[in-house]
Amino acid sequence: MIDQLCKKIRETNAPIVVGLDPMLEYIPRHLLDRAYAEFGETLEGAAEAVWQYNKGIIDAVYDLIPAVKPQIAMYEQFGVEGVNVFQKTVAYCKSKGLIVIGDIKRGDIGSTSAAYATGHLGTIQIGRNRYSAFDEDFATVNPYLGSDGVKPFIDVCSQEKKGLFILVKTSNPSSGEFQDRLIDGRPLYEIVGEKVAEWGQEHMGSEYSYIGAVVGATYPEQGKVLRELMPKAFILVPGYGAQGGKGSDLVHFFREDGLGAIVNSSRGIIAAYRQPQYALFGPENYADASRKAVQDMIADIDGALQKAKN
Amino acid sequence: MIDQLCKKIRETNAPIVVGLDPMLEYIPRHLLDRAYAEFGETLEGAAEAVWQYNKGIIDAVYDLIPAVKPQIAMYEQFGVEGVNVFQKTVAYCKSKGLIVIGDIKRGDIGSTSAAYATGHLGTIQIGRNRYSAFDEDFATVNPYLGSDGVKPFIDVCSQEKKGLFILVKTSNPSSGEFQDRLIDGRPLYEIVGEKVAEWGQEHMGSEYSYIGAVVGATYPEQGKVLRELMPKAFILVPGYGAQGGKGSDLVHFFREDGLGAIVNSSRGIIAAYRQPQYALFGPENYADASRKAVQDMIADIDGALQKAKN
Repeated sequence: MIDQLCKKIRETNAPIVVGLDPMLEYIPRHLLDRAYAEFGETLEGAAEAVWQYNKGIIDAVYDLIPAVKPQIAMYEQFGVEGVNVFQKTVAYCKSKGLIVIGDIKRGDIGSTSAAYATGHLGTIQIGRNRYSAFDEDFATVNPYLGSDGVKPFIDVCSQEKKGLFILVKTSNPSSGEFQDRLIDGRPLYEIVGEKVAEWGQEHMGSEYSYIGAVVGATYPEQGKVLRELMPKAFILVPGYGAQGGKGSDLVHFFREDGLGAIVNSSRGIIAAYRQPQYALFGPENYADASRKAVQDMIADIDGALQKAKN
Repeated sequence: MIDQLCKKIRETNAPIVVGLDPMLEYIPRHLLDRAYAEFGETLEGAAEAVWQYNKGIIDAVYDLIPAVKPQIAMYEQFGVEGVNVFQKTVAYCKSKGLIVIGDIKRGDIGSTSAAYATGHLGTIQIGRNRYSAFDEDFATVNPYLGSDGVKPFIDVCSQEKKGLFILVKTSNPSSGEFQDRLIDGRPLYEIVGEKVAEWGQEHMGSEYSYIGAVVGATYPEQGKVLRELMPKAFILVPGYGAQGGKGSDLVHFFREDGLGAIVNSSRGIIAAYRQPQYALFGPENYADASRKAVQDMIADIDGALQKAKN
């Protein structure tokens, strides 16, 4: 799947991923009204609105990008109905040829991580039949529990030709509270990054490892260090746009081949129509606004990468 | 809810929690056959078997214990159908008067943690209506992202009178890989424990804080240190039984009032009938075996606490 990701990034010239992180407040009135008319102002109605909203965005942008990253929390807030829409969204994106990174940030003791890996990336035997449940292509994983919390995910990825992005240095303001603490003179995120590199070396695609890392766009200096520390790892970079990261912050996350990083934007794309520069589209045309925002993001990053080359 | 937990532990004299972590291989044949006959060898059939299995155990043990801890990974492995059974299990346990600790180990950047907190502990406004989705009483939280990944959970707990258990030192063999690394001469888990104590002091029930910690039974020495470092925190202690922890390992997790800790056993209780000492019950009477295993666990811990007193 990591080879597929490289191929699709080259085809689209877009090292970006759209974060499908729907909040009710982002959803245009006409979609809410339609869903509530059918299912009531209920969890089911809200989930239906999210589903229609997602479909509109996916239809509008799928040809421009290699991948999407639905954040499962935004679906879990609507309970079982929301999780059902998460699953439908994953399947719909895959039917459109998109690679799906499940942003699930799971991680637990071995047997429990194995169950998460089964549910999100693997298959489960039920009587004489075998099923996949959520079936994302990649998943994000929290490393706090150490190797035996991560290994079950790696095992499933090896079998299923899927991949991981392991949290190394997250994009949020307080990520330094524990991640930046010095251990033998080096921050924890470097220690974790080294482990990611170690795990990754044994699990290689043809150019990159299928064990990648998450490093926030909001920490470009740390990104530079981590890029060198994990030469074979693809880096998933959240924090672009709404969280404050800019194209010029991102150049050090990439390798010289123009690959090695994939930059996520969520709100900045899916709720583009609510921003002043895309307001002319109006809520009815929210998906067109998202398409324009994707094109602008691609140009921003491409411009920064070209500039860095010269 | 933390006051409720103290009250229920006193009433039952059982500082224990039963981990409802079903695996297909634990489920007796007669329950599988019945579920598959109705729903086929499908995700739905497996989920139905899990649900019937859980109900049997809950009915057999609910009067002996204060709380249960369903591990959501074990439900996510069956996809949406499994998550539906998670939700039904939470509701059923609450209807039996049990406190429910959702073992979800979520944790993300602020806005995402807020969505998890909404879905698992809070309520969401949909049009003119307000809903709770999964509605656990407590949730476990991963601290790797620092304060702003934890605060949204705390905020919801303050509003809803619920509580948290934050991962400090986990029970798995490789937990030391990052958690034991020394920062200014002290292991990371102590640094995290200090933060838990700090968060907890501002969020007190009448005796204990509703911001608790997870510390594995498999690390009794570390438990002793952390008990002192977090005097107001309730400690959720996994790793008893199947993972190797014994009653005598646990005494230092408790305070002198006999409270302050709640010990989890999962496999050891729910799959008791598969162990030699409970094999006489047979698969048909798996729930009775679970009841006996709960009684034995209560006696083991009570014995250890009494011995430590004298």
